Amino acid sequence: MTQLLRVQNFMVSSDGIGAGPDAEQSLENPFGLPVGPETLFAWAGATASWPNRTDPGGSRGLDDYFTRDFSRNIGAEIMGRNKFGPQRGPWQDHEWQGWWGDEPPFHTPVFVLTHHTRPSITLSDTTFHFVSGEPAAVLAQAREAAQGKDVRLGGGVSTVRQFLDADLVDTLHVAVSPVKLGTGLRLWDSPDDLRDRFHLEVVPSPSGVTHHLFWRK
Amino acid sequence: MTQLLRVQNFMVSSDGIGAGPDAEQSLENPFGLPVGPETLFAWAGATASWPNRTDPGGSRGLDDYFTRDFSRNIGAEIMGRNKFGPQRGPWQDHEWQGWWGDEPPFHTPVFVLTHHTRPSITLSDTTFHFVSGEPAAVLAQAREAAQGKDVRLGGGVSTVRQFLDADLVDTLHVAVSPVKLGTGLRLWDSPDDLRDRFHLEVVPSPSGVTHHLFWRK
Repeated sequence: MTQLLRVQNFMVSSDGIGAGPDAEQSLENPFGLPVGPETLFAWAGATASWPNRTDPGGSRGLDDYFTRDFSRNIGAEIMGRNKFGPQRGPWQDHEWQGWWGDEPPFHTPVFVLTHHTRPSITLSDTTFHFVSGEPAAVLAQAREAAQGKDVRLGGGVSTVRQFLDADLVDTLHVAVSPVKLGTGLRLWDSPDDLRDRFHLEVVPSPSGVTHHLFWRK
Repeated sequence: MTQLLRVQNFMVSSDGIGAGPDAEQSLENPFGLPVGPETLFAWAGATASWPNRTDPGGSRGLDDYFTRDFSRNIGAEIMGRNKFGPQRGPWQDHEWQGWWGDEPPFHTPVFVLTHHTRPSITLSDTTFHFVSGEPAAVLAQAREAAQGKDVRLGGGVSTVRQFLDADLVDTLHVAVSPVKLGTGLRLWDSPDDLRDRFHLEVVPSPSGVTHHLFWRK
């Protein structure tokens, strides 16, 4: 069985923007967006299977198939440093342990891309490793850690683009929200940019987002 | 966490028919349909995650989210006797072990509804138990066997209707194919029949089927 590299529930605006300009990211504004993150995330937060849901309830329609697929057959995640935290440059200390508190929603090894070394951290059943190297080499590490399961490519925008450029992504699910942001980090000019290498299905959801499902040709 | 009773990947024609008239079911025609079963099943067979797929490949678009969800968090199945085999009345012998060969795709306990007792059968990691009783009592047995996971209601048409009538179904996914059959066992006159008790999302797939997603209000 092939171990896929999967991008899941990646959220962008109608003009392809998934995060604010680099300098805008901060502790108070993790995505650096000029709008609240709920603008892009609301569809997922409304589903029964959203990993951060604390109250019962939630929808079990189309959108829920995407949130419930988040952890299915995933054995490791790769994320960019800017998804892990707002710091830049060498680590000043090791106090920052990510945005997710004592129970991160990953439950697998997570490989954080950074040029600045740091010891691994284990929080509950998630272990963060800090690694540098070419995408293919990092993917090889993550695949070994995943023990036969797939690897999730968790973002952010620059990380997804880097792995797309290296032609390492097997499947990509992008939820496009009906809001235009204008400036920020852009996943694409148009989803059609990827059609040469990927099949694409475009599926409008009753919630207002449009799911874009890509898989390798 | 609630243990849901889920109907998944249930396939009907545009006029709501999921199997031929009872008398038409046979060893050669398990669904008793006037057309080949591929008429209703082709969308699922084309996906990468179809459990019976033997060659690599297959689509990873919208339809694949439904086939890949087949076994996620399922701990037991309930099925009608007519899904298990074409025999009627008392078992003549115990040679028939279902349609699925030595490796049934269930991988859990399966509760087969029948008034005619028979010892349990284990094939690989699937065990078939033959049970009678009211839907609520059978569901209680299946829930216990599922050890905290959900229970799949596997069909056929009469079994799904029986559990719907008893108001025991929590979620229902029906894939409606664009073909009219005219006669046979009918799941509904119209999907709107269920709107009083269920939310409904209707999602057309590029494959031509229309996914109907119901969840309890």
